Amino acid sequence: MTSAAYIGRERVEALPLANRGLSYGDGLFETLRVHRGEVPLWPRHLARLEHGAARLGIAVPDPAFIEARIAGLITGVEAGVLKLLLTRGEGGRGYAPPVEAPPTWMLTLHPLPVTPAALRLHPCETRLAIQPALAGIKHCNRLEQVLARAEVERAGCDEGLMRDTDGRPVCATAANLLAFDGRRWRTPSVARCGVAGVLRGWLLAQGLLEEAELAMEEVVSAEALALCNAVRGILPVAALGAHRWHAHPATTDLQARLAMAYPMFSLSGEAGEPGEARP
Amino acid sequence: MTSAAYIGRERVEALPLANRGLSYGDGLFETLRVHRGEVPLWPRHLARLEHGAARLGIAVPDPAFIEARIAGLITGVEAGVLKLLLTRGEGGRGYAPPVEAPPTWMLTLHPLPVTPAALRLHPCETRLAIQPALAGIKHCNRLEQVLARAEVERAGCDEGLMRDTDGRPVCATAANLLAFDGRRWRTPSVARCGVAGVLRGWLLAQGLLEEAELAMEEVVSAEALALCNAVRGILPVAALGAHRWHAHPATTDLQARLAMAYPMFSLSGEAGEPGEARP
Repeated sequence: MTSAAYIGRERVEALPLANRGLSYGDGLFETLRVHRGEVPLWPRHLARLEHGAARLGIAVPDPAFIEARIAGLITGVEAGVLKLLLTRGEGGRGYAPPVEAPPTWMLTLHPLPVTPAALRLHPCETRLAIQPALAGIKHCNRLEQVLARAEVERAGCDEGLMRDTDGRPVCATAANLLAFDGRRWRTPSVARCGVAGVLRGWLLAQGLLEEAELAMEEVVSAEALALCNAVRGILPVAALGAHRWHAHPATTDLQARLAMAYPMFSLSGEAGEPGEARP
Repeated sequence: MTSAAYIGRERVEALPLANRGLSYGDGLFETLRVHRGEVPLWPRHLARLEHGAARLGIAVPDPAFIEARIAGLITGVEAGVLKLLLTRGEGGRGYAPPVEAPPTWMLTLHPLPVTPAALRLHPCETRLAIQPALAGIKHCNRLEQVLARAEVERAGCDEGLMRDTDGRPVCATAANLLAFDGRRWRTPSVARCGVAGVLRGWLLAQGLLEEAELAMEEVVSAEALALCNAVRGILPVAALGAHRWHAHPATTDLQARLAMAYPMFSLSGEAGEPGEARP
């Protein structure tokens, strides 16, 4: 079994056609690294899901129930990616959120992606609209990312740098952006657009990263660039358009600090028990 | 039968959990008025769907095949609303659009909504983000409309006026905005955000409506306000927040002109054959 869908606590074989995730992208998701039957950073994923659900007014199933279903799905799984999708459930035609519809949610298990040692970024033309009402949360309105990722594919790159409609660099299509200025790692704000990544949040909480307004010139002139997300960890950037970067000790150091807390992100592939893992 | 789903030309009973509409709102929709087994304004709906699909790079099923399925679903239906939802189909985890996935699409039939004689509009706090890459088309990233419509419900109003993040009035949550300045009907541009409504397009093509930059002061000081969409026709606005409007002959005149071309939108409920209907 590699997927399971639920309406509230009831297991279902298929989603109703009236699902509001399908109609309006009216939902949230989390993309979780699975390692030896556990999910590192799970408390941070759950916190972001609950925060997003509160912002959108979507009910969250009992976390203990979700955790038990996740545990059942990933038992014995050495490595993988688990997607948790939560939608507002069923609704009639029309945008008005249904009153007290049980949330419809699903879990799907995927193989761990193969990641290049250093990434080539495409500078995407597709911009992120400035929308503070939806910024930070990992909602399902992702057409901007779909269009940007299609650009990345056409360019034959690994990922893409996305700017907002004012030209400010924000993030990659599926990762946060980290820039080292010779002294500290900095990452753009996600108050106007972009997703507050779980690993980004951990790095900020550890004092290893600072939030900052970053201009495009600061990004291209950074001593080192990296991307981070909760599936792949910290990935060095080798190129952004015509700009090039060599391997940098600051990136290796940041990767080592992450691997100390979460060994599954170590580059050697060696991994012990995660520090913050549930279920 | 009041709904049907298809992968390409194949009828399916349920949608795959990996559907990209569900994952990312990666799709488009049309909301069609059904009248005596026909769909008025169908060519305009199809044109908008095809335009949106070209913008997003989504394949459109053969129109003749769609039309035949619609005809089968609405035969003998006196009045109703038909929703056509087109998604990019199935894809793996990740934003990259799948190559050559057959589009997944569905039709659902709903009752015609009861519409008040004149609408009370709530001035929504939720703003529309400025995103030219997605403006005009009827895509499935609709969280802004969901949040705005929730405001409308809480305010006990019929609809809501949405402004963009620069404060410009744009549209209602599910209709376009029409403002009469004593001489002509005007409607805001949808080049930055908002949906290019099918009935709005018809009114523009008839020379009954002009596109204009409208400031909030021009909206509240208009002699008459109305909303339009392809399901409900032209609806007078009686209130926007604390502002009030009486019935205005310009609105009645516009309604009469629409009813001449499309009798199903006549207020008396009398209706003959539509002028532009297929299938």
